Amino acid sequence: MRRRKDVAVTATDPTPAVAEPTAEERAELDRLYADFEAAHMAPLWTQRAGLMPQHPEPAAVPMLWRWSTLYPLAARSGELVPVGRGGERRAIALANPGLPGRPYATPTLWAAIQYLGPREEAPSHRHTQTAFRFVVEGEGVWTNVEGDPVAMRRGDLLLTPGMHFHEHHNTTDHPMAWIDGLDIPLVSQLDAGFFEFGPDQLATRDQPASSRNERLWAHPGLRPIGAPRTPASPLMAYRWEHTDAALTAQLELEAEGHPGVVEPGHAAVRFTDPATARDALSTIRTEMHRLRPRTRTATTRVVGSAVWQVFDGAGVVTVGGERYEVATGDLFAVPSWAPLTFETDTGLDAFRFGDDPVYEALGLHRKDPA
Amino acid sequence: MRRRKDVAVTATDPTPAVAEPTAEERAELDRLYADFEAAHMAPLWTQRAGLMPQHPEPAAVPMLWRWSTLYPLAARSGELVPVGRGGERRAIALANPGLPGRPYATPTLWAAIQYLGPREEAPSHRHTQTAFRFVVEGEGVWTNVEGDPVAMRRGDLLLTPGMHFHEHHNTTDHPMAWIDGLDIPLVSQLDAGFFEFGPDQLATRDQPASSRNERLWAHPGLRPIGAPRTPASPLMAYRWEHTDAALTAQLELEAEGHPGVVEPGHAAVRFTDPATARDALSTIRTEMHRLRPRTRTATTRVVGSAVWQVFDGAGVVTVGGERYEVATGDLFAVPSWAPLTFETDTGLDAFRFGDDPVYEALGLHRKDPA
Amino acid sequence: MRRRKDVAVTATDPTPAVAEPTAEERAELDRLYADFEAAHMAPLWTQRAGLMPQHPEPAAVPMLWRWSTLYPLAARSGELVPVGRGGERRAIALANPGLPGRPYATPTLWAAIQYLGPREEAPSHRHTQTAFRFVVEGEGVWTNVEGDPVAMRRGDLLLTPGMHFHEHHNTTDHPMAWIDGLDIPLVSQLDAGFFEFGPDQLATRDQPASSRNERLWAHPGLRPIGAPRTPASPLMAYRWEHTDAALTAQLELEAEGHPGVVEPGHAAVRFTDPATARDALSTIRTEMHRLRPRTRTATTRVVGSAVWQVFDGAGVVTVGGERYEVATGDLFAVPSWAPLTFETDTGLDAFRFGDDPVYEALGLHRKDPA
Amino acid sequence: MRRRKDVAVTATDPTPAVAEPTAEERAELDRLYADFEAAHMAPLWTQRAGLMPQHPEPAAVPMLWRWSTLYPLAARSGELVPVGRGGERRAIALANPGLPGRPYATPTLWAAIQYLGPREEAPSHRHTQTAFRFVVEGEGVWTNVEGDPVAMRRGDLLLTPGMHFHEHHNTTDHPMAWIDGLDIPLVSQLDAGFFEFGPDQLATRDQPASSRNERLWAHPGLRPIGAPRTPASPLMAYRWEHTDAALTAQLELEAEGHPGVVEPGHAAVRFTDPATARDALSTIRTEMHRLRPRTRTATTRVVGSAVWQVFDGAGVVTVGGERYEVATGDLFAVPSWAPLTFETDTGLDAFRFGDDPVYEALGLHRKDPA
Repeated sequence: MRRRKDVAVTATDPTPAVAEPTAEERAELDRLYADFEAAHMAPLWTQRAGLMPQHPEPAAVPMLWRWSTLYPLAARSGELVPVGRGGERRAIALANPGLPGRPYATPTLWAAIQYLGPREEAPSHRHTQTAFRFVVEGEGVWTNVEGDPVAMRRGDLLLTPGMHFHEHHNTTDHPMAWIDGLDIPLVSQLDAGFFEFGPDQLATRDQPASSRNERLWAHPGLRPIGAPRTPASPLMAYRWEHTDAALTAQLELEAEGHPGVVEPGHAAVRFTDPATARDALSTIRTEMHRLRPRTRTATTRVVGSAVWQVFDGAGVVTVGGERYEVATGDLFAVPSWAPLTFETDTGLDAFRFGDDPVYEALGLHRKDPA
Repeated sequence: MRRRKDVAVTATDPTPAVAEPTAEERAELDRLYADFEAAHMAPLWTQRAGLMPQHPEPAAVPMLWRWSTLYPLAARSGELVPVGRGGERRAIALANPGLPGRPYATPTLWAAIQYLGPREEAPSHRHTQTAFRFVVEGEGVWTNVEGDPVAMRRGDLLLTPGMHFHEHHNTTDHPMAWIDGLDIPLVSQLDAGFFEFGPDQLATRDQPASSRNERLWAHPGLRPIGAPRTPASPLMAYRWEHTDAALTAQLELEAEGHPGVVEPGHAAVRFTDPATARDALSTIRTEMHRLRPRTRTATTRVVGSAVWQVFDGAGVVTVGGERYEVATGDLFAVPSWAPLTFETDTGLDAFRFGDDPVYEALGLHRKDPA
Repeated sequence: MRRRKDVAVTATDPTPAVAEPTAEERAELDRLYADFEAAHMAPLWTQRAGLMPQHPEPAAVPMLWRWSTLYPLAARSGELVPVGRGGERRAIALANPGLPGRPYATPTLWAAIQYLGPREEAPSHRHTQTAFRFVVEGEGVWTNVEGDPVAMRRGDLLLTPGMHFHEHHNTTDHPMAWIDGLDIPLVSQLDAGFFEFGPDQLATRDQPASSRNERLWAHPGLRPIGAPRTPASPLMAYRWEHTDAALTAQLELEAEGHPGVVEPGHAAVRFTDPATARDALSTIRTEMHRLRPRTRTATTRVVGSAVWQVFDGAGVVTVGGERYEVATGDLFAVPSWAPLTFETDTGLDAFRFGDDPVYEALGLHRKDPA
Repeated sequence: MRRRKDVAVTATDPTPAVAEPTAEERAELDRLYADFEAAHMAPLWTQRAGLMPQHPEPAAVPMLWRWSTLYPLAARSGELVPVGRGGERRAIALANPGLPGRPYATPTLWAAIQYLGPREEAPSHRHTQTAFRFVVEGEGVWTNVEGDPVAMRRGDLLLTPGMHFHEHHNTTDHPMAWIDGLDIPLVSQLDAGFFEFGPDQLATRDQPASSRNERLWAHPGLRPIGAPRTPASPLMAYRWEHTDAALTAQLELEAEGHPGVVEPGHAAVRFTDPATARDALSTIRTEMHRLRPRTRTATTRVVGSAVWQVFDGAGVVTVGGERYEVATGDLFAVPSWAPLTFETDTGLDAFRFGDDPVYEALGLHRKDPA
């Protein structure tokens, strides 16, 4: 048989244009491809450009979810849907329109608003998936993590590392809502998840202002020598007072002419494990950013995806060509390699979580500018 | 509105069975769920068990591809389909029936048979995706990796770490086929891939018996002090003579009463980066196993998936309940957490590649028995 | 020549007792040993037990220096000896009697009382040697570390990592004294020291309550993303308020029945680098310990030496058989492998610095109980 | 009292020259210094320049020991002195004249010639100190390391990591001598040594060509999955055939125009632990260097000390201003920061061992050129 030659090449991504086959050749090729399919095989040459694009071409799209939409929907489900064993949590996920049929904010990250009515309880369970809560408003819920009661208050980041039993209970007569972030899509894609139900009764109803782990670990640079060893970060709560003070100091230092900010007018902290100095969670990076009034950030892009929530202030964010006016509580998704820019007249605080540790661990990290 | 209570719980994975709603409640719920959808939101409580199963429930299934099927199909495409720019490689992927529409052996691993006819060339490119070749039979092709010509011979493992330019050319008058392994599904899922075409002309037509990197690095325990630093393993070729000798020694030591084997009758080596002692590739583990005649391995399962190819001998492998009689060249996929057992009367050598380094890096590794 | 045989062996450490040589043999041996000496050689067999003892046999001895002796001597030198370029510092070292002729507290650690009179300045220099200051009483001196002014106050630990320019100045009309700790003996033994004089004028006379590095880094678990990278700990000041709070919390948790203390009644923190979570200094471990009233610690010993200073309270310490009644400001040296026990009726806070990181880095660490 | 001012400063290292004191001041100072001594204290200002020099000023000096001197002395001790329990080894150490009274080649390294007569045995012991043997000529001795018999042959490097029982026995009718290297001075200075006698009878008289550990581990880039975990390098023997081949390949690659050598005409390999890719021993770096005929190396200096032994060929080495003509077997010591240059007309192979890992682990490494 004559082998068909003369593959044409285009400038950007050549497709294997082949000399027009004869009818006989066409029939043989059809038979070959049918035999491939019957044998559970698939040729690379017809799919190469899609499988291995010249740069990331995410299916996930830039997307904005407004707090003014999310919160009322969560409140309505608070009226209609009980929280309890089986469903486990009254959490409503952000579903990226580019990933139809899946409740995923990005290909690796799950983000949801969780709502707990007055005196309600969400039962104990644990799972491989890494989780955190971030509180944009409200207070009064305690989350018990391995039996250690952790208060949830505005601006706090609360961790639930993988395989830590956790449960929530609202100690007040008003509802409370917050954001959950997890690596559910990543763990699902990797077929790596284990899940266990805990006891049906709360481990404790204590409501201390500080959890035991904070009392041991939330002292700057001080390691408690006798503290138990833990596989994940022993510090489960990062309080707003510390985060706020750190960001304030960076901008003050900038005003005094000293280094410390990420770029002019842009302060930021990363939440870390004090026992290892690495990211607070093994698969999710968590950060708080603060923009001074009248700041425009540089445009950057990174491999990997992220979700941001505006914590305070307002501004305009441009994600991969989409332009969003954002205010407190609004969330948006940034797909891999999508350019990102912030502008603010009044100043802006924003919480970010991303899958960066995954890429760094696997040697897949890249950013622009480098 | 009355909140519907009394969620029922089943023994294994309770589903949130709710007291039968009234028609009015049903209508309100329908409106809520419709509003969720309109807002690009999705409730957790209806999907929790599927999103977070009690143990891995992979979509990928155990699957066997026989060499006696693969090779003739590859040879037919050698007659019908040119290899050239655009398609880049005459590679035909193993497509797991559990992952329909995708040419993936498992959710993270791509495996293919690549076929190069007499005097053919596969053009230069590079990409983020990590790759290797393993040769079950034949010789005569050289792969040039960053301009360093690497001979491909039976039993050899040849690496192409991420972003290394590579090209292949058959220096003989007979065809050659081998197995390609890549992390295409993982990199695709992570939207992390970059791809670049290289020059259209071969970097070199040299056919040395040893590549330059082997001459520098393939000396046991010896680091060449003046060798250039590289981001990935500098040793690109692991020769069968060394692999065979290592496996032979393990079984001899076992016969002499000394430790060294994995389990009775089961020798194994892992291919590692001599500059770091870590896995030879950052996202793919590569190993060669040898079973003595009349050996039955313990049944094990690990989180993460793998593909095996029988290199020599014959036996029976049981994967997640499927039982395959296998012989030289046959490949099979092992999904996450699927139990795996080997039996052989005549002895068996088998090459394995898996995504284990991903799970270890992310703290998601688990095995049974632990 | 007849070879002399019959080496006798004793139970604990046999010495090579040799059959009585003849006069002729004796003469030949004498000639051999003289020829060794002439050739700059030395036999092992006559010195083996001394060179390689069965357990550490330090030349350094347990030793106590009382603050009531040290401080007046330092004050007298304040009257008699200027501080200035060349001598550089008015520091008086603790000289272990077991290491005659050397101003070393232990074989690896240098400890001194430094005294700065009203308005005095100690000029800028930098060196390979790692240093810290610990303040047992007083305040009013600022140490400028690479131009960053760091207040020194009671209970504070202040770092000067290797090759950081530093200078001190007393901003008050009263003198101030504190403890310096350095790895001078280690660096001297290793012939690894470099030293440079800095400018003769103070870099700054600013007297901020917090140094710039504290403002960036002294927030628990929060990494300032834009902060400059540093080879050593970026946090140069560990304030007593944090140390005290951490120790208080550990004892409160113990009283509540939760883990966190080192042993009953014994709380302790280690000062760490927040950017790496490792020891604050690369060659010196620094810790603060607190004993509850009526506490007796277990007796422990470690390979490596340490110096302790009582910060507050009183008690009895037993070091390698020596028993010292100690009070605020007293310092004592603990040689390698010497058993150490504390007893206190009234409670005791004590600062410890040791060479532990050296042993851990080199695989030489050992402790008892293990 | 008047404080004496006006400290003079010289260009290189100012000494605290003080205005001429009055007789009364002199008397007071004398009393102060006497009181310091009585209190076991020592002022820094009179010793600062000696304690903290501007660059390393080692007491150890460059020194050459000729094989033609060493070997006959070792042979004479073979006639006169038995080897046995207590003395343990017939080893004669190189004693640096700059370190009088101590049998140390440098402040951290012990080097000796060890001599074992026909059929002699050196008894089993183990110790914290790390050791190796390097064989410049001869064969016929086996060293049993933890019961694994390791043949010693010309050009081989044999390891005895810390706390591994080891014993030697000569299986032939001729004597054999080799070089021992240990970290005895370092461990002694650190008071970190433990020593234990082993059984009086040899663990084995087996004389295999390859040790069991080599059979498991001496395959390039291949990790035996089932091998026992070890705290130190599992590969105890580095054979000359591999070392020679690696050096040969580097010079051939250079001749072909490819990278790989340290500098023109200068090939070198470092002996590493295949399980970690780090130095083969935790405190001692070991390397083999080869200079092509008519090569002159660049002059370099490093912090830390080393001992070299010429393995083959001849040349001229310049160490810190001393110029030595060297030939096979000659050893020389290189103190810290001493400039080092090699010249050879005929070509030269030289083995080097140094304390570099200590400095790298402690952040004290520095070299020139950087």
